[in-house]
Amino acid sequence: MDAVRIRAEVGRRKVPLDLTSDVVALTRALVDIPSESGQEGRIADAVEAALRALPHLTVERIGNSVLARTHLGRSQRAVLAGHLDTVPAAGNLPSRLHDDRVHGLGACDMKGGVAVALRLAATVTVPTRDLTYVFYECEEVEGDRNGLHRIAAERPDLLEDADLAVLMEPSDAGVEAGCQGVLTADIVVRGARAHTARSWMGVNAAHLAAPVLQRLHDHTPERVVIDGLEYREGLSAVAVRAGVAGNVVPDECVITVNSRFAPSRSPQEAEECVRRLFPEYEVRVTEVVPGALPGLDRLAGLVSALGAAPRPKLGWTDVARFAALGTPALNFGPGDPALAHTAGEYVPVEHLRTCEERLRTWLLQAP
Amino acid sequence: MDAVRIRAEVGRRKVPLDLTSDVVALTRALVDIPSESGQEGRIADAVEAALRALPHLTVERIGNSVLARTHLGRSQRAVLAGHLDTVPAAGNLPSRLHDDRVHGLGACDMKGGVAVALRLAATVTVPTRDLTYVFYECEEVEGDRNGLHRIAAERPDLLEDADLAVLMEPSDAGVEAGCQGVLTADIVVRGARAHTARSWMGVNAAHLAAPVLQRLHDHTPERVVIDGLEYREGLSAVAVRAGVAGNVVPDECVITVNSRFAPSRSPQEAEECVRRLFPEYEVRVTEVVPGALPGLDRLAGLVSALGAAPRPKLGWTDVARFAALGTPALNFGPGDPALAHTAGEYVPVEHLRTCEERLRTWLLQAP
Repeated sequence: MDAVRIRAEVGRRKVPLDLTSDVVALTRALVDIPSESGQEGRIADAVEAALRALPHLTVERIGNSVLARTHLGRSQRAVLAGHLDTVPAAGNLPSRLHDDRVHGLGACDMKGGVAVALRLAATVTVPTRDLTYVFYECEEVEGDRNGLHRIAAERPDLLEDADLAVLMEPSDAGVEAGCQGVLTADIVVRGARAHTARSWMGVNAAHLAAPVLQRLHDHTPERVVIDGLEYREGLSAVAVRAGVAGNVVPDECVITVNSRFAPSRSPQEAEECVRRLFPEYEVRVTEVVPGALPGLDRLAGLVSALGAAPRPKLGWTDVARFAALGTPALNFGPGDPALAHTAGEYVPVEHLRTCEERLRTWLLQAP
Repeated sequence: MDAVRIRAEVGRRKVPLDLTSDVVALTRALVDIPSESGQEGRIADAVEAALRALPHLTVERIGNSVLARTHLGRSQRAVLAGHLDTVPAAGNLPSRLHDDRVHGLGACDMKGGVAVALRLAATVTVPTRDLTYVFYECEEVEGDRNGLHRIAAERPDLLEDADLAVLMEPSDAGVEAGCQGVLTADIVVRGARAHTARSWMGVNAAHLAAPVLQRLHDHTPERVVIDGLEYREGLSAVAVRAGVAGNVVPDECVITVNSRFAPSRSPQEAEECVRRLFPEYEVRVTEVVPGALPGLDRLAGLVSALGAAPRPKLGWTDVARFAALGTPALNFGPGDPALAHTAGEYVPVEHLRTCEERLRTWLLQAP
């Protein structure tokens, strides 16, 4: 090995992850391995190596996602899942511990949750349910690169035998059930171009967009109660674009709206809601993904063990992918979801300990 | 001279302009010298050389603008002005003659007008008024690069002694008097960001922009009559911009408005009009240039000689620069102004001949 390659190897710092270390140290070790979406090779290598050292688990690698499974012949199987990737760094590396919080890129979203799951994988060797741990890539980018999506497509057998799933996205160490669906659509207002010196020769599409924006302003989204949880919907303009040149009456104004809809609605229903609100305009749906019903009837034991009254999850998470596979799932993880993707993100040490302890209790109690 | 330099010289095709040729041939020769704004060197060289060959004129060169003046000691001095530059080519070179129209880049805006002025410079050797011909650079770009602006700044003496000016911008071979002013302003609507999954935590600036656009839609601009000419004002949104990310309630929406105001209004008055319409919003004026009064009382002889009932000029032109120098000016040139800047621009041969003939008559008749 020549000097250049030696330096490259040192640069990659292949330090093994120590799963017997404290959850705080493990969270920091994970934060200190950069893993922006698409660059999860090093963290996946480290996670895979650490899990392969555990004799009670079988390990599979799919792309930069790593799965580990117990084979105890239990009557139930549960998934614990967390993504390995982060959004791009924002001057928030390396990790630091301050005021009983781990600070740094991904500390909240969601290396704290991954650390908790890795600790359980290493230390709960004889759980009362069979377990499938999933550590996956590319959650923060477009859906077709998502590691869970890829596993479901290439190795559905590794997910389909699960009876329930816990997604360890930040949820303030509480239970957030289900998730709302998301629809994005462009509302297109058309006019006719003209020189602004003779503006009456044209039809100003930006002026004609006023009723669209007013209708969005006046719209009162519904509140839908499911399993006792209130899913509060939303319909927001997230972009308005019009403009040809500084002296031209614009012939098009496009309003992009983002709808968050209750998990009891189908994507078709969600689309209908938007179209009904704008019957006289062209509506182009650019993306729609269903939500996930809370499914609390099938998760009652888990919710009770986690010891927190469930709240509705308003944002979209990968629990919807489990729901699509027929597996009831909930969000339970350390960290405040409002801190996700912020430069100042952190995870409280107390959350890390609470999540580890409650899940350990559940994994060891009778199903 | 080596082979490379020879090829370069040939590439530049320093063919002299023949000012004794027909106005149609001269227009085509000018169109065939590319002169996008900032690249007027070659056409200015050709114009300068042709004018320097005329003993009745003194010639000045300022940047890529060329001035030529008679010195007959007449009681009046008139300016004939046209810009040498064009907008970028759009597959419309070289020139061609078809259906009695000269087609090609700049044919309409405004090499046809330049050809007419060059013909007059060469052939009217003893005009009844002293004349200043101005062929200038960079009219199609930002105002501080404009050749007239530069001449007025560096050699005001060359413009200040004029009693009136004819700007040979396309005006359908008719008289377009004065010009309207232009004001551009941003109207800023503010809100507060939030994740769209919790849109009620924020204030959607795009939704709040509805009343601004509605007010623009409902606004009836004034029609101002000056010297019997109706200047029809306009107020148009020319751009709307809002958007942070696909899942974020935008905290700002900026509507750019373009006002065209009658030349009887000052820039201050024009600004007040916009501010009065949007008293509750932040209004940032980004550009304001005054128009030019028609000044028909001081241009009566010229208008009568040109033999066309004057119309109001609604777009802004450099007549406003002459007005600012205290020189009454009007627009009179071949070509339909609506064709300016279009790939299919052309100038009718009939316009070229009419403009040359009418101006020649005026230049030879008693002041």
